[in-house]
Amino acid sequence: MKAEIISIGNELTSGSVLNTNATFIANHLFSSGIEVAGIITVGDDSASIVEALRGVSSSVSFVVVTGGLGPTVDDITTHAAAEALRRKLTLNTQARQAMEEFFKRMGRTMDPHNLRQAYLPGGAAVIPNPIGTACGFSVIRGSTIYFFLPGVPREMMRMFEAGVLPLIRKERPDDTMVRTAVLKIFGRTESYCDQALGDLIRQEKEISFAFLPHYPEITIKLTIRGTDRKYLEKKLKAAERKTTRLLGDIVFGKDEETMEMVVGNLLRSAGAILSLAESCTGGLITHRLTNVPGSSDYLERALIVYSNRAKKELLAMPASILSKHGAVSREAAAHMAKEVKRLSKSTIGLAVTGIAGPGGGTVEKPVGTVFIALAHKRQVTTHRHQFYGDREQIKSITSQYALDHLRKLLIAGEISGSN
Amino acid sequence: MKAEIISIGNELTSGSVLNTNATFIANHLFSSGIEVAGIITVGDDSASIVEALRGVSSSVSFVVVTGGLGPTVDDITTHAAAEALRRKLTLNTQARQAMEEFFKRMGRTMDPHNLRQAYLPGGAAVIPNPIGTACGFSVIRGSTIYFFLPGVPREMMRMFEAGVLPLIRKERPDDTMVRTAVLKIFGRTESYCDQALGDLIRQEKEISFAFLPHYPEITIKLTIRGTDRKYLEKKLKAAERKTTRLLGDIVFGKDEETMEMVVGNLLRSAGAILSLAESCTGGLITHRLTNVPGSSDYLERALIVYSNRAKKELLAMPASILSKHGAVSREAAAHMAKEVKRLSKSTIGLAVTGIAGPGGGTVEKPVGTVFIALAHKRQVTTHRHQFYGDREQIKSITSQYALDHLRKLLIAGEISGSN
Repeated sequence: MKAEIISIGNELTSGSVLNTNATFIANHLFSSGIEVAGIITVGDDSASIVEALRGVSSSVSFVVVTGGLGPTVDDITTHAAAEALRRKLTLNTQARQAMEEFFKRMGRTMDPHNLRQAYLPGGAAVIPNPIGTACGFSVIRGSTIYFFLPGVPREMMRMFEAGVLPLIRKERPDDTMVRTAVLKIFGRTESYCDQALGDLIRQEKEISFAFLPHYPEITIKLTIRGTDRKYLEKKLKAAERKTTRLLGDIVFGKDEETMEMVVGNLLRSAGAILSLAESCTGGLITHRLTNVPGSSDYLERALIVYSNRAKKELLAMPASILSKHGAVSREAAAHMAKEVKRLSKSTIGLAVTGIAGPGGGTVEKPVGTVFIALAHKRQVTTHRHQFYGDREQIKSITSQYALDHLRKLLIAGEISGSN
Repeated sequence: MKAEIISIGNELTSGSVLNTNATFIANHLFSSGIEVAGIITVGDDSASIVEALRGVSSSVSFVVVTGGLGPTVDDITTHAAAEALRRKLTLNTQARQAMEEFFKRMGRTMDPHNLRQAYLPGGAAVIPNPIGTACGFSVIRGSTIYFFLPGVPREMMRMFEAGVLPLIRKERPDDTMVRTAVLKIFGRTESYCDQALGDLIRQEKEISFAFLPHYPEITIKLTIRGTDRKYLEKKLKAAERKTTRLLGDIVFGKDEETMEMVVGNLLRSAGAILSLAESCTGGLITHRLTNVPGSSDYLERALIVYSNRAKKELLAMPASILSKHGAVSREAAAHMAKEVKRLSKSTIGLAVTGIAGPGGGTVEKPVGTVFIALAHKRQVTTHRHQFYGDREQIKSITSQYALDHLRKLLIAGEISGSN
């Protein structure tokens, strides 16, 4: 079965934003065994939208349209849909109700202006929007189902997953299935992984291996298609195991797991409590760790010691370290990790100090010089890194290495709940 | 003048990679005053490529095609181009020479396999590729010029900038220019802005207003086209001023400015020093502030007091506040802001405490309840919010409101460098 994606928005045709929606939808359709015959992007222009909708070949079963469903003047998709599919716009009571309920839930009264969004092409079925005012809708014409969704990515994604994908999967006449497994890698390059897996990729002819760099991580996606669910899952599991064995501990997670989830689970299993002292990362590591629900189980506190005064007052940083080695040094990082662990009575202290740039670099310590220290029991390990990139990239890669060093310490298995 | 972009590749239609090429090209065309009528993405399939090429309207002056020019079997664009544009493939001596020179420069001899890439549609002009083997080429048919470029982004970008854009700019009959201005909004909805600007949008017929929600912010992009640079810039400036006047202080920035840059500049101008005590945001506010180069000028420290013990030990949180009002309360937030300001001798103390979820909510204080406090001089102001969404969304919107409250305090102008 074939699908087409139509993306609407001047922000796309003027190159102001990347079309992440189309990629998201294409990826889900592909994984469901649906071929994406084409992706068409047009601006907020009625004639272009009508032309794109009318241009869809009758061999296409599903058309997913995003964008232009908002309440403002440049949101014209619903009108264009009515015109292209030859339906009248009528007040859809289901859409009206959904919108009124949404406003009620947010504790606001609905602006009459918003009612415009409840006028849908005749015969349209509503696709609920749990987190916004713009309802989606679907219209069947001939043997094609047209789905219309808002362009706001977080709304579109939730509506596509809950209101579109299940319908598409049900409509599929055959039993072709696609199964995918995702492995997440950090610490080596794509070509390293490619070489390490070369023989396996040649052997496993039924499985396609795709390398997707998501800086600073690499995602390896294993895909298998067929009709025998048990066979597919067995083959996939085996290939996943072989891949992990060949790559070793640079595989940090699977599927939707993030580095901070993996580290969080390891901390919880060890019964360990973590505290942090961040300088150049400015809170990013703690922010990432606290994105994981339940992180208060293992995260005690963090000190963002951005100034030297804060380093002295909060972490009793000796003046001698600052004068002899500087705030960006192995010695400073080690002291910070030990001291934050001691003060907070935690199992592990993690500290980071470095030069995120663009200023502050020297010949000996250029921009991107970072020290990461881990204190546990009576030991401190420190790592010196030289990173490249702009300020945000250096913060990001530093946070990733800090979490990865912590992960490796935890999988070495020498951590226990005592401090 | 109009252009169309055709992107070719299974990696695009399967949603494995984002179509960054199309966004890059669209952005350059738009800035050169060329309207992008559509972007079409198809897979590595000859019939689809031919159909996309033949479907281009004769009103389109330029077609930029990327992908499928490599040496492997799935690189079929050149054949499809010859078929669609009704030309024969012939050995192009210019292309052959360019390829031989490339291999020589790389110190390698050319694989006969590669010669395939020198067969181009009759009448094609070569677009040199300084960093790869696949030449690009252009073909004129009717009043349309078709440009074919490889899909590898760094090759495509260099070839587009050096070999395509100058040609397109020369072909433009007039000197049409585009000027844009971007205003960034926070704190009201898109439909509020649309209503507030309704009359202005109707009056300013030469200017197009586009609303782009970038949760939790809204971006309003004003665009004007014409030939008289001075006139365009004057008109745009005036429309920008009127827009800002109508929307008031919910306009927080312009163009590339982020909320944290705006707040940083205001802190620096006031000679103020900021310290933070974050609980539910887990370091996100400090992370955002420290993304701005030079933030150490005004950011002293931050305490991520995730546990109650940390609140007591680091911020002398009275047990009575915790027992009577709880860690998530107006009283706790106010105490945190005052105490972090006092301890760090800063001008302003900013504190946040709340329930990011998914657990921890109660009837009185459901998930999403957040208190934000600002301490300056002898005053403390607190704000209670009720947010919705998942954990990361609640953290994100909380950080945004915290920075916005700080911004409003700073633009009120009562802050001076003393504490």
